Amino acid sequence: MARRQTRFSAQDMVDDPRLKDESPSLWGDDYGGVAAGLLSSAVTCFAGIGFNATTTRDISAGVGLSPAAMYVHFASKELVLFEIARIGHERALAFIESPEVEQAADSTARLRTIVARFVAWHARHHACGRVCQYELSALSAEHYEAVTELRRAINGVFRDAVRRGVQDGSFADVDVDRVVRGMLSLGIDLVRWYRLDGPDSPEQIGEFYADLALSMVARGSAVTSA
Amino acid sequence: MARRQTRFSAQDMVDDPRLKDESPSLWGDDYGGVAAGLLSSAVTCFAGIGFNATTTRDISAGVGLSPAAMYVHFASKELVLFEIARIGHERALAFIESPEVEQAADSTARLRTIVARFVAWHARHHACGRVCQYELSALSAEHYEAVTELRRAINGVFRDAVRRGVQDGSFADVDVDRVVRGMLSLGIDLVRWYRLDGPDSPEQIGEFYADLALSMVARGSAVTSA
Repeated sequence: MARRQTRFSAQDMVDDPRLKDESPSLWGDDYGGVAAGLLSSAVTCFAGIGFNATTTRDISAGVGLSPAAMYVHFASKELVLFEIARIGHERALAFIESPEVEQAADSTARLRTIVARFVAWHARHHACGRVCQYELSALSAEHYEAVTELRRAINGVFRDAVRRGVQDGSFADVDVDRVVRGMLSLGIDLVRWYRLDGPDSPEQIGEFYADLALSMVARGSAVTSA
Repeated sequence: MARRQTRFSAQDMVDDPRLKDESPSLWGDDYGGVAAGLLSSAVTCFAGIGFNATTTRDISAGVGLSPAAMYVHFASKELVLFEIARIGHERALAFIESPEVEQAADSTARLRTIVARFVAWHARHHACGRVCQYELSALSAEHYEAVTELRRAINGVFRDAVRRGVQDGSFADVDVDRVVRGMLSLGIDLVRWYRLDGPDSPEQIGEFYADLALSMVARGSAVTSA
């Protein structure tokens, strides 16, 4: 295995505080027991060294099993990636389609809640988020399309919230698609560096970025050109 | 090579429009000829399948050379990564420390120019940017520290620009470090999805994101809470 550095091991990654998040809580409705453990191990490996460098042996070793154990539960490494990406996107979508969003008093409160929840979700599940954002090119065409469908739905929640605020006059007349792309970047880029043991809780960074997102759609903001 | 998918090849990556950028123009002051070609090939491979999954054979194949050719010019794959990261960060830093920034009429114009140039640089060199943002954990401790020093300098340019605007009253009294983190995320996240053959030129997305960044520091922005 000439291309593997000796300093990587599944155990090193399990112990790496940069890769610790709450992804293991995501699988409950779909998988339990060993299968859930394999998904969590795969999240750590894919987030740590990438899908292409991860072996099925690494994934099994993360739960203390023999090299072929993964195949008892998943037909391929690609299927493991798909299940992580599918479930990750489904959970993130459900989290920003919460009753709290539907009950928001107005367009500003609605957008604030959506951004704060989207950001907090990605902070709390940043390792899964990293896999969902950086590893999709390794999916089969069919699986890629299924995940793209979920991404369109997430995009749609943001676009709808911004469009409603523009239409009712709460927000400036912004370029909806491009502003939404910027808001999503704020929520997504943090998976690159966020740590749960850092200074900001997921909810704190969520609230802060919700303020930044609202500033992007504010009417008559006054940056002075002295 | 059980872990490599047959659908990856250095040639596929060279031909992939998602990985085409202007990184080959970056090496001129440091490397020419075959060495420069190897760096460009490595950018494509690292951005396409990740550092850990790339072999020295892949890097050599990208310039049509035999497997060991890389070692004539670089002692290790890690050194190739370091040279890409070092040069990439040095060029990005130089680009936002341009005379155009120093000659800016006021704090608003200065921040606008810095953000627009930072974003345009990352758009134009998005494959190199992807390596610089997502692959640093594969660097040796010493090389990681050297790159971190350059990242601190880039961060410092943004912080200084925001702080000056806060101090002279051009901007609101914002949390400088956290706002800068958000601005950098706007400029960085685009390396994940930007393509030079897409609808926005590097300069267009630079100007658009400069507007978003200025909105983040605007005084008295009016998001109505109806």
